[in-house]
Amino acid sequence: MSSRIERLRELLEEPLLITNPVNVLYLTGLDSSNVALLVGPDRARLFTDFRYIEAAQAVEGVEAVQTKRALISWLSENLSGRIAFEANVLPWSFAEELREGGIELVPRRGLVEQLRAVKDEDELDAFRRACAITDRMFERLVSEVRFVGRRERDVAWDITRLYHEEGADSESFEAIVGSGPTGARPHARAGDRVIESGELVVIDTGCQVGGYTSDYTRTLATGELDGEMREAYDVVLAAQQAGLDAISAGVRGLEADAAAREVIEGSDFAGTFGHGLGHGLGLDVHEAPRLSTESSDTLAQGNVVTVEPGVYLAGRFGIRIEDDVIVTENGVENPVRFTKELLTVS
Amino acid sequence: MSSRIERLRELLEEPLLITNPVNVLYLTGLDSSNVALLVGPDRARLFTDFRYIEAAQAVEGVEAVQTKRALISWLSENLSGRIAFEANVLPWSFAEELREGGIELVPRRGLVEQLRAVKDEDELDAFRRACAITDRMFERLVSEVRFVGRRERDVAWDITRLYHEEGADSESFEAIVGSGPTGARPHARAGDRVIESGELVVIDTGCQVGGYTSDYTRTLATGELDGEMREAYDVVLAAQQAGLDAISAGVRGLEADAAAREVIEGSDFAGTFGHGLGHGLGLDVHEAPRLSTESSDTLAQGNVVTVEPGVYLAGRFGIRIEDDVIVTENGVENPVRFTKELLTVS
Repeated sequence: MSSRIERLRELLEEPLLITNPVNVLYLTGLDSSNVALLVGPDRARLFTDFRYIEAAQAVEGVEAVQTKRALISWLSENLSGRIAFEANVLPWSFAEELREGGIELVPRRGLVEQLRAVKDEDELDAFRRACAITDRMFERLVSEVRFVGRRERDVAWDITRLYHEEGADSESFEAIVGSGPTGARPHARAGDRVIESGELVVIDTGCQVGGYTSDYTRTLATGELDGEMREAYDVVLAAQQAGLDAISAGVRGLEADAAAREVIEGSDFAGTFGHGLGHGLGLDVHEAPRLSTESSDTLAQGNVVTVEPGVYLAGRFGIRIEDDVIVTENGVENPVRFTKELLTVS
Repeated sequence: MSSRIERLRELLEEPLLITNPVNVLYLTGLDSSNVALLVGPDRARLFTDFRYIEAAQAVEGVEAVQTKRALISWLSENLSGRIAFEANVLPWSFAEELREGGIELVPRRGLVEQLRAVKDEDELDAFRRACAITDRMFERLVSEVRFVGRRERDVAWDITRLYHEEGADSESFEAIVGSGPTGARPHARAGDRVIESGELVVIDTGCQVGGYTSDYTRTLATGELDGEMREAYDVVLAAQQAGLDAISAGVRGLEADAAAREVIEGSDFAGTFGHGLGHGLGLDVHEAPRLSTESSDTLAQGNVVTVEPGVYLAGRFGIRIEDDVIVTENGVENPVRFTKELLTVS
């Protein structure tokens, strides 16, 4: 962990106050909801309240300092001088409180996120294990679980159960099970809708191993589909392959997005892919870098990103196919083994 | 929902931009991670991106507006005039972006949170149902589940499974199962430690029904305890009753906290209750009002709060007992039925 603090120091012009709990977790290993880390040139101080102080004292290479529960208020009374803060994280009124306490605040953005975007071998190992478990979950889901006649939320519970049985630490997020028209809303949760035959069902799910997350999507058929659905599936599959083919270190996030988007825009489904191609994946399910029309990121070796184009026809159906890949010098390493052929479940 | 927007309007001096997704959910019913609501004197506009726009359009009494994914950047280009914002929520750099876009920003804090703290009958019904399921979960946990010789995380999975079987919408947070010394760290997760006999096990858990959450803690024995453990249990139980007895509308959060704290400070375990007595409960697991030594809140009829004193002896054991109660004019309604007597499990 302390080598991460060393790498952060190289990016700093003044001491940095880190208040994003996930960034603190990355730098120190301490998982706390009420925490701040001040990294200066010679020392690092880890601030937390009574509930987490014992765990904080066990962190090597930092000084643990117990604060009152109102942590920012305590810092405003106890810190001084010129200090950078995570301006894209800290709420406005907390920044004001620190400033009123006499600290000369310098806004900085994305410094720790920049380190987090490039994974080391230990991080990649945890990620690959999460993918292996997600593969096994999907294999069992399509072979053991009944879809037709059951509610979306019942299938979502089977996903939760299968992750547990396959040894995941936890499910990373509540699985999306979007059947028929529900699938046309890209972020609809699994609800009370009963899955019918002859539909498409979007399954978007991931699990966590050693803190690191997977995030897959597959779209399954529940019986014979009409021609438009089959055509849309092939378009999304081709777009996803185009996205994968476009990725390597040095490629810009918006170029990768464009490669996949072009396929959909050149098809009968132009205008129906309303979100970005993908996002970074790590301790958070959504982190740097971004692959989208709005992205200003450039991909680097060791990034882990999702590749997830989709087609959404409001009130009718949705299709999305998503792998998670590691960016390499010349392309990608794709640890996802579960098939992208259109599978029919019953 | 729109009556909530009406009540909010009565508190406003200028239009308010709401960016806390849970506050938007409370006011509109829309559950989105990328959303803002602008409530003015005559209209309310609900901003979100492609992924949630279909759901936003289904909300009555608001105008749905589709933005790009970078929502705040879109707002900075499309809004103007004098607008209040949630200063305790919005990150500093987003506030700056809005200001640079020409908006005259007015910082406000806790306006929607103030409404949310007082629950209406529908909200209380959902909360009571969550409690009834939590009661049944605990009854089955102590009668059906084996503790000794199993890992904390295995017991946590049984809690997840029992909530599902009893009909909860979801588990509100990963259950804490703190056995022996783990229990002395109030927020330790369920880990790989194998539970032994003759220990105390802190179980802190809740489930969600209709969006509303329960949050209980019980401390169980796994066999014969030593005299100090039994004494500590009785002290916590007495402190919890003192906290419950002190609560009614008009009482200050720090008075309720003091009533429970006094019992522990007057015992052999003085100085070992390092956190606050409780917190509000609703759409979030932690919300207004607070019951602690640092609280400036006064309790009101219709608040739902936890009452959860504890004793923590580092490296040895922890004890916490927690109910959730509805604040009434003359006291509390306590919907928690599961016993607080010291139970022994095997």
